Amino acid sequence: MLLPTVDGHRLLADLDLLARFGASASGGVNRVAYGPEDLEGRRWLEAEMRSLSLEVRTDRAGNSIGSYPGQNSRLPPIAIGSHTDTVPEGGRYDGSLGVVAALACARALHESEVRLQHPLEVVNFAAEEATMGGTIGSRAMAGIMDPSILRTQAWDGKEVADHIRAAGLDPDSLAEAQRPEGSLACFLELHVEQGSTLDAAGVPLGVVEGIVGIRRYAVRFDGVANHAGTTPMENRRDALIMAAPYILAVRDIAIAQGIVGTVGKLSLHPGAPSVIPGRVDLSVEIRGLDETRLDAAEAALSDTAAATAGEFSLISSKPAVRSDPRLLEELTTACKELGVEYRRLPSGAGHDAMCIAHIAPVAMLFVPSRGGISHALDEYTDPENCVTGARVMLHALMRIDALLDPRA
Amino acid sequence: MLLPTVDGHRLLADLDLLARFGASASGGVNRVAYGPEDLEGRRWLEAEMRSLSLEVRTDRAGNSIGSYPGQNSRLPPIAIGSHTDTVPEGGRYDGSLGVVAALACARALHESEVRLQHPLEVVNFAAEEATMGGTIGSRAMAGIMDPSILRTQAWDGKEVADHIRAAGLDPDSLAEAQRPEGSLACFLELHVEQGSTLDAAGVPLGVVEGIVGIRRYAVRFDGVANHAGTTPMENRRDALIMAAPYILAVRDIAIAQGIVGTVGKLSLHPGAPSVIPGRVDLSVEIRGLDETRLDAAEAALSDTAAATAGEFSLISSKPAVRSDPRLLEELTTACKELGVEYRRLPSGAGHDAMCIAHIAPVAMLFVPSRGGISHALDEYTDPENCVTGARVMLHALMRIDALLDPRA
Repeated sequence: MLLPTVDGHRLLADLDLLARFGASASGGVNRVAYGPEDLEGRRWLEAEMRSLSLEVRTDRAGNSIGSYPGQNSRLPPIAIGSHTDTVPEGGRYDGSLGVVAALACARALHESEVRLQHPLEVVNFAAEEATMGGTIGSRAMAGIMDPSILRTQAWDGKEVADHIRAAGLDPDSLAEAQRPEGSLACFLELHVEQGSTLDAAGVPLGVVEGIVGIRRYAVRFDGVANHAGTTPMENRRDALIMAAPYILAVRDIAIAQGIVGTVGKLSLHPGAPSVIPGRVDLSVEIRGLDETRLDAAEAALSDTAAATAGEFSLISSKPAVRSDPRLLEELTTACKELGVEYRRLPSGAGHDAMCIAHIAPVAMLFVPSRGGISHALDEYTDPENCVTGARVMLHALMRIDALLDPRA
Repeated sequence: MLLPTVDGHRLLADLDLLARFGASASGGVNRVAYGPEDLEGRRWLEAEMRSLSLEVRTDRAGNSIGSYPGQNSRLPPIAIGSHTDTVPEGGRYDGSLGVVAALACARALHESEVRLQHPLEVVNFAAEEATMGGTIGSRAMAGIMDPSILRTQAWDGKEVADHIRAAGLDPDSLAEAQRPEGSLACFLELHVEQGSTLDAAGVPLGVVEGIVGIRRYAVRFDGVANHAGTTPMENRRDALIMAAPYILAVRDIAIAQGIVGTVGKLSLHPGAPSVIPGRVDLSVEIRGLDETRLDAAEAALSDTAAATAGEFSLISSKPAVRSDPRLLEELTTACKELGVEYRRLPSGAGHDAMCIAHIAPVAMLFVPSRGGISHALDEYTDPENCVTGARVMLHALMRIDALLDPRA
């Protein structure tokens, strides 16, 4: 028996091959969820899985699942993967790397004729990108999909359900993709960081402690619109003057709580050079792994708004998802055993793993994104880091297989 | 010979009659420049002037001019008036009061059979409101109209020239309305304040020291747009965080210079809750009567922008126009002689007088705008103050007639 090893050249070649599907003249990749290029890419990947003797099926949500048998067929499978859909004019790495790395792990096992104790599933989730609301495939699988998403507008203004139908799927039976809690031993995902922490630190690998909670708020400041020429400074109630210190307070509160906080949207009414702003509406988003810190930031944001006559309201809240501590430990150990420098960090972006966490323990690995850039054609991860990520994943996979074996 | 006296009831009745032209169901007035309601209102006013034996003509810009002979026909006329066009859904007082007050002065002279030394002209200027760029009639008369205004979009998106043609005028001969410097002995205008100074102070009359200079700037802050979840606070270059202190600095600089300063427009790119703002564009407008203070504010605004990596550029600059000191003195004396409490103040808004200042000495009187409101259906000036304004204007007119008489 050979020791299973990731074929780095093959992995990078697969990344190149996958990037042909939806390749644009400008160098970007357009594999928008459920579109023809997305489906072509998925079909290619399914063929690759079959060539490794994986048994491939597509569920009702369009998730592609390739099964590699384990030594103990009564054990629930270990799943590993990510997604191959992209944002419009996206890059070659986001999602794709995790899927070809999962394929590389399956190939390593297949070619060395090694079977894990658990069955292995290579999963290519459908519609992860926010072009249709985000993580539709993994939500469907975890049974947490809000059916109202089907009636919302996709990236191009069409209904999400129309795109799903165009892909040959039935929007009304998407929920049948659901798998019960405990049906997977665990889910592992390799992904590009989409942030600059690893790149700035020059560290090749990140062990993800969890996926941050995301809370969004609307804050409204009501002043009095008036003539900018005839209204003396002392008689003004300028909504933008009320909002400006709040913008800075959002930053300060985020820093104080060790989270991130952003005012990304701001509109001003009526919005003419010669009229004092009568109203300002702004968005606040905070993200952090620690819900108590998010709570503290929310309280401070709310108090500061109240103190400055701002009207503060919660728009949405997605709780943080922590990586399974045992899986986290195994990923860390795998790094150490392979001599790969790593850093533990939170994921600031959402991922399929966040959804699958509802039905199984999950953990993630990150590789550096050059300049922190993602969702753009200049998204880039050093080839060596891509291969390192897959190597650590395979090593961890084998350790986790042993760890989760009930006989162990 | 009777002493000429303003007929207050008649003046208020004229205001009511004029308000019927373009009256909207909601209580606003729509006499947008060169539109049918504007023209109907002007024709009514011309008929009123004729009923007082004024000789009425309309010049090439559509200004209505009613002439009342003086004792000395070789003297240039004293002009008095304002405008009857309104913004869409405007009020009953802005412009209209000045025209009916001028009519009331002519009526007082006519009915008491008094002639001034100078001929008197009651002028109803065309297209004062910014619905077509502003003060078109008075600019044409002063020879300072930029012909490019004819090619710009009016309030409804149509070309200004189209509106002028629809009113039966020839856009290409508007400039023929020009009158040479010295062709008027002076121009006097009564107007509502459009600010809250007089109303807040409970003072019935304002003697206008001049019309403020207006300077507009564009300030641009370039940051780096990035993922609001994955970009740590310390790695951000958030354009809105750069802009927020600048917004407060605009206020502080204006207060320090004793002028007004406003950020009335702000746009943020790309403008999504989960994206760090990569660019902010904002407008700054400053207004003040004293050009040296405007210069100092401009220098401070520019320096502050430079210190915070903002790109600062001048968009437009209209110089301040000071009231003629002798006319100012006569208006003040008229107030004192009639026992009317007054306050000297600058005009924060532009007026026809600002344009006519290029060819003649000018001065203005203000009456209070309740709550500082104008350009809206709840624009209101107390009837008593309307009459007081016209009474002071008539008294001052007679003093100024004597003052400017070369034989005096």
